[in-house]
Amino acid sequence: MRIRVHVTPRKGVLDPQGQAVAHGLAQLGFDAVGEVRVGKVVDLVLDNASSESDALEQGQAMARKLLANEVVEDFTVEVLG
Amino acid sequence: MRIRVHVTPRKGVLDPQGQAVAHGLAQLGFDAVGEVRVGKVVDLVLDNASSESDALEQGQAMARKLLANEVVEDFTVEVLG
Repeated sequence: MRIRVHVTPRKGVLDPQGQAVAHGLAQLGFDAVGEVRVGKVVDLVLDNASSESDALEQGQAMARKLLANEVVEDFTVEVLG
Repeated sequence: MRIRVHVTPRKGVLDPQGQAVAHGLAQLGFDAVGEVRVGKVVDLVLDNASSESDALEQGQAMARKLLANEVVEDFTVEVLG
């Protein structure tokens, strides 16, 4: 089963990478770009997931333990099938 | 209008960050994890998008010019609303 984990900076946390992208886009002429936030997307193949809910739970456990820093990042997990 | 751009390593391109995540997860006891690919997710607010298709086109142009390196990365753009 394949899952996708999004890890994004929490609201209110400074996102220098997002600011750099916004600045770069403005330099290229994309001058109507408002806020930009940059995060990570992690696609994983789970060989032992017995169901979608099992895959979701495994993904959440992985996000909590390794993929996300919950002090400054939020995460979401979805099953891709 | 808000859009989300995913930038992921192309199939066949080495993804050392994904390998590191897979290794870290195995160390933590998640031993049924197969392939892991790590990419970026960029959420943008467009202040001047007149329609969903306009927002998609702007996002694709941004991805081609700045967000993705199409030699080694794929991208997808979706409208969040």
